[in-house]
Amino acid sequence: MPPEPPYYAVIFTSRRHPGDDGYAAMAERMAALAESQPGYLGADSVRGADGLGITVSYWRDESAIAAWKNNAEHLRAQTLGKERWYGAFDLRIARVEGAVHFTG
Amino acid sequence: MPPEPPYYAVIFTSRRHPGDDGYAAMAERMAALAESQPGYLGADSVRGADGLGITVSYWRDESAIAAWKNNAEHLRAQTLGKERWYGAFDLRIARVEGAVHFTG
Repeated sequence: MPPEPPYYAVIFTSRRHPGDDGYAAMAERMAALAESQPGYLGADSVRGADGLGITVSYWRDESAIAAWKNNAEHLRAQTLGKERWYGAFDLRIARVEGAVHFTG
Repeated sequence: MPPEPPYYAVIFTSRRHPGDDGYAAMAERMAALAESQPGYLGADSVRGADGLGITVSYWRDESAIAAWKNNAEHLRAQTLGKERWYGAFDLRIARVEGAVHFTG
């Protein structure tokens, strides 16, 4: 997982429409593509039974996030996301300033 | 939900032990207590079937986060969390610098 702060987080909170409609395959492809991007540090993703999902991805700096945002294949996925899959989403870019890890 | 950036996010990613053991009631109580704190701006929380959970809470500034961290009832819950409920967690404090909202 990420190194010591500072680094950046993209917090993506979304509501999915019911049904798959190609979503799972695209989500898997985008996760793999993100991993191959320069400056990618890791990600956590959860979707609840009620359709609310949170994905947080971690990046070295803002330029890495901008490059990922503008990746051609990712841009096509973003368009499909708005057209097909998401009823609503919030995307936030945040600078991680402190981190604590606990293992029991 | 939150106003325009900047504001702060607490990103809490956790792995739960199986079974409830008082967790659900405490989680509900802590969510209600957080809402009553000065500087609280909102939160999103999801836990997947595999035990991975992500909760992101939003706060006006770092002093609001510090006050919540040190709230007496919350401190007792944090101790129980380490003793009983969480196999591991990561807690990150991040400054939200940009936000986009989409409604389809």
